[in-house]
Amino acid sequence: MATVLYMSVSVDGYISTPDDFLGGDDGNRLHEWYAPGGDPDGLTGEAKALAGELDEIGAVVTGRRTAELMDHWGGDVHNGVPIFIPSHRPPGPAARWGYPNVHYIIDGGVARAMEQARAAAGDRDVYVQGGYTAQVALEEGVLDEIQVHLIPVLLGGGHRLFDLLPSEVELEIVKVIDTTHATHIRYRVLR
Amino acid sequence: MATVLYMSVSVDGYISTPDDFLGGDDGNRLHEWYAPGGDPDGLTGEAKALAGELDEIGAVVTGRRTAELMDHWGGDVHNGVPIFIPSHRPPGPAARWGYPNVHYIIDGGVARAMEQARAAAGDRDVYVQGGYTAQVALEEGVLDEIQVHLIPVLLGGGHRLFDLLPSEVELEIVKVIDTTHATHIRYRVLR
Repeated sequence: MATVLYMSVSVDGYISTPDDFLGGDDGNRLHEWYAPGGDPDGLTGEAKALAGELDEIGAVVTGRRTAELMDHWGGDVHNGVPIFIPSHRPPGPAARWGYPNVHYIIDGGVARAMEQARAAAGDRDVYVQGGYTAQVALEEGVLDEIQVHLIPVLLGGGHRLFDLLPSEVELEIVKVIDTTHATHIRYRVLR
Repeated sequence: MATVLYMSVSVDGYISTPDDFLGGDDGNRLHEWYAPGGDPDGLTGEAKALAGELDEIGAVVTGRRTAELMDHWGGDVHNGVPIFIPSHRPPGPAARWGYPNVHYIIDGGVARAMEQARAAAGDRDVYVQGGYTAQVALEEGVLDEIQVHLIPVLLGGGHRLFDLLPSEVELEIVKVIDTTHATHIRYRVLR
């Protein structure tokens, strides 16, 4: 099992526009690769297999900002696997009472959330999302891999996947999947 | 012929560190792909062909900052082709008197420099470098293609290839070359 950051990112390094959308007229440009031409069955070959990996994950660690922007996905982001959210503040009412699979980790930060997610995932991967969460996970040495979906668009501004890290981090290219809609690159974090 | 931005960039979007070096212990991390393992003959296959394309270019447009950091490459960056540098200020003494192939374009900015470079290049490509220059060329609609050498490292900070653009720009993936040392992606700028 591995802890893997999954993020769609523009060629200029943004994961969302300044107003928290994903670019394009419909605000979903960065996620179009997942349903090319608007067709959820349009994914084929290696890209389809890559998207299918999400069905095999065992737990999710996500930033609070991402979770709240998405209303905690109604409590279920992928097949009902547990969702761990590191935060210094207790959850709001919906997350506290409404979603048995959503766990706010108030003490211990990202490292503790990753630890609990690994335990919950067992043999399966932990899916990590959110720019800030990923950055802290990298700094704390608890991120194993980075799966970037590099989308052929320049967004021009917004929120960056990686802003300032305290030091250089070497990566190893594990796999590149080349499609019309995106360049999917899997990196291993070298420590 | 086409005007093509060629840049090596880290996965977090930097083209140089805050002190204008290229990462790694030797300050050259982003350019290691060009001589893998320190061996200039180490390039093979498609990556070698890609690097070989530089021998076929007809002119260069480069930002003044890049040019001055490199001492104008002694007046010859690639096989003696003309180098055009858009700037509001006249060149310094070395560039004014020492290098017949270096042309400062004081009036007309990036668009004028690109126009002169295209004329000088004839049927051959114009090679563009520098983050700011590329950004202005994009905004002014005079950049045709972007060749990114995406290096498997997070630099953590520095100068970005693309900072803030005034609007979204759609790209088309032309070609991906997947090697151990870099993911080379060629984009066409869609207008």
